[in-house]
Amino acid sequence: MDKTFFTVGPTQVHPETEAYVHDALVAGVCSLSHRGKAFAELFARTSASVKKLLNVPDGFHVFFLGSATEAIERVVENCVGERSFHLVNGAFSARFFETAQELKKQPEKVEVAKGQGFDFASLAVPAEAEVVCITQNETSTGVALDMQEVYALKRKNPEKLFAVDIVSSAPYVDVDYSLIDCAFFSVQKGFGMPAGLGVIIVNDACIEKSKRLQEKGMNIGSYHNFPVLLGYEAKHQTPETPNVLGIYLLGRVCDSYIERGIERIRAETDEKAEKIYSFFGKHGAYRPFVENAAWRSKTTIVIDTPEGSAPVMKTLADAGFIVSSGYGKAKDAQIRIANFPVHTMKDVEGMLGALGA
Amino acid sequence: MDKTFFTVGPTQVHPETEAYVHDALVAGVCSLSHRGKAFAELFARTSASVKKLLNVPDGFHVFFLGSATEAIERVVENCVGERSFHLVNGAFSARFFETAQELKKQPEKVEVAKGQGFDFASLAVPAEAEVVCITQNETSTGVALDMQEVYALKRKNPEKLFAVDIVSSAPYVDVDYSLIDCAFFSVQKGFGMPAGLGVIIVNDACIEKSKRLQEKGMNIGSYHNFPVLLGYEAKHQTPETPNVLGIYLLGRVCDSYIERGIERIRAETDEKAEKIYSFFGKHGAYRPFVENAAWRSKTTIVIDTPEGSAPVMKTLADAGFIVSSGYGKAKDAQIRIANFPVHTMKDVEGMLGALGA
Repeated sequence: MDKTFFTVGPTQVHPETEAYVHDALVAGVCSLSHRGKAFAELFARTSASVKKLLNVPDGFHVFFLGSATEAIERVVENCVGERSFHLVNGAFSARFFETAQELKKQPEKVEVAKGQGFDFASLAVPAEAEVVCITQNETSTGVALDMQEVYALKRKNPEKLFAVDIVSSAPYVDVDYSLIDCAFFSVQKGFGMPAGLGVIIVNDACIEKSKRLQEKGMNIGSYHNFPVLLGYEAKHQTPETPNVLGIYLLGRVCDSYIERGIERIRAETDEKAEKIYSFFGKHGAYRPFVENAAWRSKTTIVIDTPEGSAPVMKTLADAGFIVSSGYGKAKDAQIRIANFPVHTMKDVEGMLGALGA
Repeated sequence: MDKTFFTVGPTQVHPETEAYVHDALVAGVCSLSHRGKAFAELFARTSASVKKLLNVPDGFHVFFLGSATEAIERVVENCVGERSFHLVNGAFSARFFETAQELKKQPEKVEVAKGQGFDFASLAVPAEAEVVCITQNETSTGVALDMQEVYALKRKNPEKLFAVDIVSSAPYVDVDYSLIDCAFFSVQKGFGMPAGLGVIIVNDACIEKSKRLQEKGMNIGSYHNFPVLLGYEAKHQTPETPNVLGIYLLGRVCDSYIERGIERIRAETDEKAEKIYSFFGKHGAYRPFVENAAWRSKTTIVIDTPEGSAPVMKTLADAGFIVSSGYGKAKDAQIRIANFPVHTMKDVEGMLGALGA
């Protein structure tokens, strides 16, 4: 039976993945020198497509990394001298905080229970914090933060850098880059690609910060520090031999999304999310984990399964639909359902149909 | 016209690449959860194939990174408290040294001219050096170091960790892992794969060292520090969502090499290298850059082209053969020719034929 992966990442791959790989191999993309003209053109094309799809303005740079996990490390290394401030409401926001600890910074945090968002109005950013670290969409709990509240916080703290994890909400989340400084994501979620590529979008303020730390004699990393990445970006290159096939595929997927229309993708995502939440909202045995509807993620939906996640996952798998278990300790008590651009309304109806919709 | 890439990396891809990708997509490899059983089996299978092909003994661990450039950073972060010692004879060995500087260590080096190897007998490793860093095959100059001399140096300095860059010689180079502590490579050279995966092989001594540095309160990195990588390896997992397709392809390529026979691959590599060096040794206009035959790399062959590299590269390209230019300042004065397992004797004869052989 053909399977449809509603897993929160890696997920169902873009339907054209094999065709794109075929095109790449025919064109010799995987044999290109990363110091040659053809690769520079490929880099520039993908970078332009990413910027166009995500509406990234001038003054921002698109750097390619190995993963979003690497992006977290690089943000801390390059932007945090001593203190970062973290909004923690799940496993991935906690990892951002813990990464700062591992890298010998002195991070502070405000932490709320799993399934909760934040009361931004009462949120006080410590004066000494240099960077505010926000996980916009917590994949572990299915909580999404309203970017308008993030912007309001930035307006109150304009001198601080804002770094936003949009790993499992890009390209759905509509980011106003003039009101943040850094965002990052990986490609195996909303872009439906094979994993192995992280993308970080940073503005000149982040790069200036990394240069200041470097001038102070601090360790900001080596080949993937921001000044080095910037120097290579100017040549449309990467410091190391990168995941060239991934960069090629990302360009193709972005172009396919641009053609489909990002507003249409966002509207369809809203419709599919409404369908899923509505179904589970009325279900007898299962219910959405996030109670406050304003905090419910549209792209990674967490459902309480009090009778255990295994039977639900088996029922779905028997019908050809693969969903994720709950995260960590919630493994047996929740399921997580992705709602990415690759998932069609027909897929969603089929998946819910297998649960009796 | 079909092109054959004799570039030193990325290079000609393994002839089964597209078939392997097809198999991966059919099997849903790119949608697998990196925390699930199927991925753990894939991790274990590739790890076992790498160990079998390269004859890696127990007590060593295979970790997957983003690139060999990342491996250099991780070796320095995890194994060097203060001082490393570097054998520098080209751009990539220099990068190893410079990475240690960037990461605020105090590296020392012995440096020889490009095209030279080292007089190991007279080589004195500084007493305070914790790690000896060796680029076994300098891709920039085409110099390969004799592993027997590396082993002899290790025997004289058994308390020091030996980290060996085999980026452009694996799997050809026959490493006795009982006499080194760490080796690393990337997959877009001798494995003929799409770039975007680095492999580092470390023994327990390297991991113990990283733990000691961590206990001292030093920064050994975050998600890709050796203790974290070790903890995930025990579960046949990676800390981040890795390049799953790359890990799958690496296993398939290793299996294809195991089936072909590593001894046969090595013998064929020697024969092809002999053919190439012999041709250029007798050529009127071009000649091998490395004069000492004992230092000549079998896998990355550098040829002086005193009348300029561009005309030679064009003659070859017109016949369908793509080679690399010289590295850095030698761009216009040298060509570099890869001799990897994917290159057949027929390819080599065709390529040399285009130059009048």
